[in-house]
Amino acid sequence: MQSAIIATGNELVSGNTVDTNSSWLCRQLITFNIPVTTIVTTGDNKEQIVKTLNQLSKQAEIIFLTGGLGPTDDDLTRFILADFAGVKLVENPEAMRQIEDYFRKRHYKMVDRNRIQAMIPEGAKVLENTSGTAPGIQLKKDKCTIFALPGVPREMKHLFNIHLVPWLRQLHTQTIHRQKLLCIGIGESSLAEKLAPITSNFPDVAVGTTVNEGIIAIQLTCIEKGKIDALTQRIKDEFGNIIFSDKGLPLPQVIGNLLMDKHQTLATAESCTGGLIGKMLTDQSGASNYYKGGIITYSNELKQSLLNVPEDLLQEHGAVSGGVAGAMAEGVLQKIDADWSIAVTGIAGPTGGTTEKPVGLVHIAAANKTGLCKTEKFLFGNPGRETIRMRAATSAMKILRELLLTNNSHTV
Amino acid sequence: MQSAIIATGNELVSGNTVDTNSSWLCRQLITFNIPVTTIVTTGDNKEQIVKTLNQLSKQAEIIFLTGGLGPTDDDLTRFILADFAGVKLVENPEAMRQIEDYFRKRHYKMVDRNRIQAMIPEGAKVLENTSGTAPGIQLKKDKCTIFALPGVPREMKHLFNIHLVPWLRQLHTQTIHRQKLLCIGIGESSLAEKLAPITSNFPDVAVGTTVNEGIIAIQLTCIEKGKIDALTQRIKDEFGNIIFSDKGLPLPQVIGNLLMDKHQTLATAESCTGGLIGKMLTDQSGASNYYKGGIITYSNELKQSLLNVPEDLLQEHGAVSGGVAGAMAEGVLQKIDADWSIAVTGIAGPTGGTTEKPVGLVHIAAANKTGLCKTEKFLFGNPGRETIRMRAATSAMKILRELLLTNNSHTV
Repeated sequence: MQSAIIATGNELVSGNTVDTNSSWLCRQLITFNIPVTTIVTTGDNKEQIVKTLNQLSKQAEIIFLTGGLGPTDDDLTRFILADFAGVKLVENPEAMRQIEDYFRKRHYKMVDRNRIQAMIPEGAKVLENTSGTAPGIQLKKDKCTIFALPGVPREMKHLFNIHLVPWLRQLHTQTIHRQKLLCIGIGESSLAEKLAPITSNFPDVAVGTTVNEGIIAIQLTCIEKGKIDALTQRIKDEFGNIIFSDKGLPLPQVIGNLLMDKHQTLATAESCTGGLIGKMLTDQSGASNYYKGGIITYSNELKQSLLNVPEDLLQEHGAVSGGVAGAMAEGVLQKIDADWSIAVTGIAGPTGGTTEKPVGLVHIAAANKTGLCKTEKFLFGNPGRETIRMRAATSAMKILRELLLTNNSHTV
Repeated sequence: MQSAIIATGNELVSGNTVDTNSSWLCRQLITFNIPVTTIVTTGDNKEQIVKTLNQLSKQAEIIFLTGGLGPTDDDLTRFILADFAGVKLVENPEAMRQIEDYFRKRHYKMVDRNRIQAMIPEGAKVLENTSGTAPGIQLKKDKCTIFALPGVPREMKHLFNIHLVPWLRQLHTQTIHRQKLLCIGIGESSLAEKLAPITSNFPDVAVGTTVNEGIIAIQLTCIEKGKIDALTQRIKDEFGNIIFSDKGLPLPQVIGNLLMDKHQTLATAESCTGGLIGKMLTDQSGASNYYKGGIITYSNELKQSLLNVPEDLLQEHGAVSGGVAGAMAEGVLQKIDADWSIAVTGIAGPTGGTTEKPVGLVHIAAANKTGLCKTEKFLFGNPGRETIRMRAATSAMKILRELLLTNNSHTV
């Protein structure tokens, strides 16, 4: 069984609103084993939407149509459905009662314009909307069932949950199983080369990879849980510690969990990332269990005064050097009583690069209070300031993770 | 002239990734007066995409196809384009050189798989990609020009800006004029009430407002520049300093420009924002001209040891209090030799709130080294951790901006 989505609204094709409804619907439907094959987004254009409905109804058994159910002139969905089904619009007493109720309960004044929202195509079913004034509409034509839902995400989700979930459940479709493996420390092509011979033995498992700021997600989908589990194990055997989460956890949270397991804490010293690492570590609630704080030294003067980086090191090797990264990581541990530290210094660009030290050069260090200090040099090229900073932050966490996995010393 | 978008990728129809590319493309194209009529989103399915291309090429003069240009097995765009155009794939020497260059510059190992990215349909044009390994492809069939762009948003935008913008400019379509006014320190309904009587005198100017983390953008669109300019002036007269940029500058950059005008510098002291303010201030290149650095004190112990916040203040009023915010702002100026400071302490949630100090309570202070210190209390409610932190960061910059606009003391 296949489904399709038609997302309507001038605000979608003008780019003023990002359509998050379709993505949400896709995620829900996949758990019912009803993949969405196509999403068509159009403006509030009656002819075009009717045409699209006609096309999609030949290939999909279920169509979700979002938007266009409101009371204003550009809300065309009810007219479109009537046209498509070849029936006329009739006032639905139940829908009218629900709309009147909505206004009465909230002590709002109901204007005449709202009455249009009780008009539905003859023979269609009203999907009561207790979270707004626009009821949904369910309509069957030939073998295709169409659900028209409001465009407001909150109302769309509400109607989906109360009306669609029970309807989809009674279809008794098979459940789809999914597994996501997040990797760091490998290029996409190298990963693909190693992955292909493994996945080729599992033709029933759909495999997709996406890459985002140095993190690769391997996504496995299959109706048989056993096959997903077996392939997951094979991939884990092959890639080992390159996989940092099989539960979809972001890298900062993985770091946090490793630290909490060891009852250890972390401090940061940031130059080119300017606070980004601290921000990422504290994106999750509960970070105070392992993150003590950090020092942002955006000037050389502060690297000396706040992190005790020796002046001669700065003069001899420059602020962007492995030596300074190491000194920053060690220096912050003198100011902040933590078990571990990470430090980053680099050239995020777009300006400030030289032949010797180009934009994208970043030195990263991780240290602990027993004297261990590891530094690594990265050349991220020039994919833009934001990406360089994100990759620097992610790489700093990658290095710390490697040390946390190999270093078994606990705080005493 | 009309255009259409085909967004491809299993991650889009599985709901794992929200397609933000299409919305971005729509916004760009509207400025060239080339509306997007349809966006079709599909999985990595060759047959379906070729069929969609055939359909859309009959109604649109320009089609943008995003995704599927990578080196992995599910990257099908080059094969699709060759099929659609009825030509074979050939290795493009220029594209191969660019890909080899990309790897050489980064000291990455190029694997055989990457060679596929230099294969393009015979007769098509390569769009060099200096920000990644996937070059874009431009291909004309009958009256329709197709641009295949990478799915990674950063690379897609990069290719659009360097290749598409010049190409679109030479089409000489009518220019649409736009003006964006960014406001802070006013609610959306109050703004709308004051705005309506002004804009009603300019019926030819389309007016839209969007709100994001406390910042309201008023967007004006019109084909007549004179009308936009006149309305812009009327809105500026009405709202004054509430408008912080008429050039689309982000608030941190506006702060930076104000500081540079005064030859003054800034330091930050962050608790619940955990580095977010430092990160935002350094999102722009050149921030070292005015931002010296900051101290992230995610624990009470560090508020004392690094920012000299008195212990009795913490015990009497708690870490989330106006007194502590003020002491943090003053304390950071003792450690970092800057003219101004901002400090934030609050409860970002979702846990940690009490009846007296609920989630969303944030105290913010701004100070300068001549002894001025202003604190303000905010109750952001509970819209989620990320929003509370963003609103705290934005509000801190709002307070500093007000002080910078009223305080004319220069560094001596």
